[in-house]
Amino acid sequence: MTTQLIESLTEIVGSKGILTGEDVSQRPDGWMNAPQCKAKAIIRPANTDELSAVMKLCHQNDQTVTTHGGMTGLVGGAITSEQDIVVSLERMRNIVEIDTQNRTLTTEAGVTLQTIQEAAEADDLFYPVDLGARGSATIGGNIVTNAGGNRVLRYGMTRDSVLGLEAVLADGTVISSMSKVIKNNTGYDLRQLFIGSEGTLGIVTRAVLRLRPKPRGEATALVAVERFSDLSKLLSLAEGGLSGGLSSFEVMWNDFYSLVTSFERHKAPLDANSPFYVILETQGKSDEAEQARLEELLGEALEQELISDAILTQSVSERDKIWAIRDDIEALFSLSPIHGFDISLPIPAMEGYLENLRTDLLARWPESRMIVFGHLGDGNLHVIIGKVSYDEKHELDETVYRGLAPLGGSISAEHCIGHEKKPYLHHSRSEAELALMRTIKQALDPKMLLNRGKIFD
Amino acid sequence: MTTQLIESLTEIVGSKGILTGEDVSQRPDGWMNAPQCKAKAIIRPANTDELSAVMKLCHQNDQTVTTHGGMTGLVGGAITSEQDIVVSLERMRNIVEIDTQNRTLTTEAGVTLQTIQEAAEADDLFYPVDLGARGSATIGGNIVTNAGGNRVLRYGMTRDSVLGLEAVLADGTVISSMSKVIKNNTGYDLRQLFIGSEGTLGIVTRAVLRLRPKPRGEATALVAVERFSDLSKLLSLAEGGLSGGLSSFEVMWNDFYSLVTSFERHKAPLDANSPFYVILETQGKSDEAEQARLEELLGEALEQELISDAILTQSVSERDKIWAIRDDIEALFSLSPIHGFDISLPIPAMEGYLENLRTDLLARWPESRMIVFGHLGDGNLHVIIGKVSYDEKHELDETVYRGLAPLGGSISAEHCIGHEKKPYLHHSRSEAELALMRTIKQALDPKMLLNRGKIFD
Repeated sequence: MTTQLIESLTEIVGSKGILTGEDVSQRPDGWMNAPQCKAKAIIRPANTDELSAVMKLCHQNDQTVTTHGGMTGLVGGAITSEQDIVVSLERMRNIVEIDTQNRTLTTEAGVTLQTIQEAAEADDLFYPVDLGARGSATIGGNIVTNAGGNRVLRYGMTRDSVLGLEAVLADGTVISSMSKVIKNNTGYDLRQLFIGSEGTLGIVTRAVLRLRPKPRGEATALVAVERFSDLSKLLSLAEGGLSGGLSSFEVMWNDFYSLVTSFERHKAPLDANSPFYVILETQGKSDEAEQARLEELLGEALEQELISDAILTQSVSERDKIWAIRDDIEALFSLSPIHGFDISLPIPAMEGYLENLRTDLLARWPESRMIVFGHLGDGNLHVIIGKVSYDEKHELDETVYRGLAPLGGSISAEHCIGHEKKPYLHHSRSEAELALMRTIKQALDPKMLLNRGKIFD
Repeated sequence: MTTQLIESLTEIVGSKGILTGEDVSQRPDGWMNAPQCKAKAIIRPANTDELSAVMKLCHQNDQTVTTHGGMTGLVGGAITSEQDIVVSLERMRNIVEIDTQNRTLTTEAGVTLQTIQEAAEADDLFYPVDLGARGSATIGGNIVTNAGGNRVLRYGMTRDSVLGLEAVLADGTVISSMSKVIKNNTGYDLRQLFIGSEGTLGIVTRAVLRLRPKPRGEATALVAVERFSDLSKLLSLAEGGLSGGLSSFEVMWNDFYSLVTSFERHKAPLDANSPFYVILETQGKSDEAEQARLEELLGEALEQELISDAILTQSVSERDKIWAIRDDIEALFSLSPIHGFDISLPIPAMEGYLENLRTDLLARWPESRMIVFGHLGDGNLHVIIGKVSYDEKHELDETVYRGLAPLGGSISAEHCIGHEKKPYLHHSRSEAELALMRTIKQALDPKMLLNRGKIFD
C-alpha cells in the first residue's frame, strides 16, 4: 500500500521531488534538540499543481501530511510520526514579482524571510516583519504561524502584511486569493483562515505581501525607568511625540539587564540599578531628523520624570551595542537548565502577574531564577526561567500558565501551539472556542490529514 | 406556530424587548430608498444571554434572523423578508470599560461609532476608524462589515482595531474571545471569522477595541499633480518623508475637482487645470511640528516635479474648506441619476482601467459622466457615474465590474456584498473560493438562518 502510494507520488513530483530512507531520517523535525524525522517520505513539489495532485492522492489514501518550512519553530509544529509523509516547499523558492508602484511582492512560500527583505530593499522598499531566524524561516512558515517580531508595534504581525494568498486544501483543492489590494470586502476573508492556523487547514503555496517605503533614517535610545506604571506612560508619550515613527519599544526587567551586562562582552551603557530599561527606536526621514525627534522626546520624558537616565546613541556601533544586550540570548544559558515562555497579557496586569509568579517559583524552586524582557507595546513578554530541571517542565508550565486566564492573558503571543503547548491551550481558550475550532477543522479537513496532532487532537 | 414563537421570544426579552405590527413595518430596512421592514417582529435583547436564548429558540424553530445595526449600509445587507425576524442590538449600548493603561475599550455592539470616538477622546485616547455615518453606524455593524474610511492608510480597517470579540452563533452558542492583547497565537483566530462576514456566521455582541494615542496636532495640504505615475511616487515620498505620520492621501480626478469647485459654495483653492488633486494630511506631535514637516515635504515634491502646485493650510477653517470639497457628495447629485461604485485595484492598473471604462461608458451612454475620487493609498476608488437611467443599473454594474477581475481588482473595497452586489460576486471570487465560503457557512450555520440571502444564496 505504502510502496504503491510512494510510487504514485513519485510519478507526480519526479525523482527530484521525493526523498526516502536516510535522506528522511537524517533530517531533524525542528530546531535544537528536535527528534529525527520519522515520516515515510519527504515530498518536494515544484509548484502548486504538483502539490494539488499530491494532496488529491493523499486524500484518496487517507494519508496524513505534515508540512515542513524553514524548521525554526519553537513548539514542535513540524514533528512527524511514522504514519506521516512530509510536504516540504523547499523547491518553491521563486519571488514571482515585485510591483514597485503598487508596493507588493508576490512570492512562492518556500522563500526565506531574509530573501524577501533583501529583494524588497533592492527595490528601495521594505518588508517590515523581522525576527532572528530570518535566514532560515520561510515566508510560508511565517504566514501559517502569524509571525511577529520586533516591529509589531508599528507594522503589525505577519497577518497585517499579507494581502493575498494561495493554499492547497486537504483534498487538493487550490484556493487562490492572490489579491494585490488592501481593501477587499467581498465575502469571507479566506486569507484569515490560513494565517496563524499552523498548516492544519491548508498548505500555503504563494502569497502577495504588502511592502512599505524604506525608512531613510533611524535613531535609538536606551532609558532607565523607575516605576512600572511609568512604562505605559512613556509608551504613550513616545507614540504621540514621535508621530507614528516609533518602531520598537523593548523593555528589559532589571534581572535581564543586570545578568546580561555582567558579561564582559558588554559594557553597561547605563548603571544596572533601575528596575526597568527600555530601548526606543524610531524610523523615518533621515538619521538627523529622527535623532532630533528622539532627543526632544527624551527631554520631555525626563522633565515628566518618566525616565531617570537616558542614552541617545550617536553611531551605528553604539546602536548595535545596545541591541546586542537585548539580543544576547546566550547569556541566559548561564542559568541552565532554562525554559522560555512567550506570553501576553494586558499591560496593567503584568506587574501583579510577575510578582505572583516569582513568589510561586521561589516557593517551589528556591534556586530558580526568573528573567523577563519583551515587546511591552504589544503586551508580549518573554519570561525565561532558569535553574529548574527539564524533568519538572510540565509542572513549571502549569505554574506559568495558570495565572494567565483570569487576567485575559495568552499562553502563546507569537510562537503558536504546535505539539508542545497543546496540553495548555485550555488556559487561553474556552470550551466553546475549542469546539468552534474543531468545527472549522472538520469542515475543511474532515479526515484530519493536515498536521494531525497539532493545536488539538 | 409564529404566534407561539413570538410569545416564547417575548418571554425571553420582555415586552420592552420586542416590536411587532406597525412598529416593525414603519421602520425602513436601510438607508435612502430602502424598503420598509417586512419581518414578523423585531427582537431587542438587553444582553448576550437573552440573545443566546433567542437564537436557541429560533434554531429549534428553523426561524431565519436578520440583524439590524445602525442601518447605514449601502448594499442592502439589512433587507428583510416576510419569513424573517429581526434582531436589533439597539438596547445593547453600554461602553463596558476603558482601560487607559492598556489602551483598550470594551463595548457592547449597539454603541455608535461616534460615541466610541468621543469616549476614547475623553480619556485622551483615539479610536482611528472614521466614516461619514459615524453618528448612526454601530460598532457591531462596523465590525461585521470591516468598515474602512479615511485613515486606513495609517491605522488599517476595522479588522485592525478589534482585539477581542464575542458573538452568538446560529444555534445560540456564545463564543467569547474577548482578548485585550495584540498578540495571541493560540489556535485559530476566531475573531476573523466574524469580522467582515456581514452577520452571516454569528451576531457580534461585544468587542474589545484597540485605542491609540490621541494625535496632538495635524497639518493638511492640497496639491496638483500632472501625471498619474507621479501619484504613487508622491505617496511613497510622503510616507517616507513624514515618518509614519501620513494619515490621509485622498485623490480627486479632475472631473471631480472641477465639478465640485464649480459650485459657488466652494472657492477653488487651486486652478482646476490639472488632471489630479491630492489632499495630504499628517497627524502627530503638534500643529507646528506637522506643519513644518509637511512644508518640507512639499518643497521636495516640487523640486522633484511630482507636484505642480500646492497649498498648505494655515488654519482650521482653511483645512475644513479643502475637506469640504472632498466631502461634497451633494454636488454629484447634479448629475442625477447617479450610481456609486466602491472598487479597488492595484495602483498601476488604475489608469488603464478608468480609460477603458470611460470609453465603454461613452460608447453605450454618450451623455454619461464619470467622476472619480478615492483613497489611492489603499487602492480604493469611488467611481460615480451620472446621467444613466436607474432602469439600466444592471447593465451599468456589469460594465463597471467586468474589467476588474483580469486586473485583480475587487467589486467592493469597503461596502461589502449584502443583497445588492450578490449577482456580481463572481467577478471578484473564484468558484473554489465561493465553494469554501459555503463550506464555512454550512459548518457554522447549517440551517442558513443568519442573514439568509446575503453574500450568496
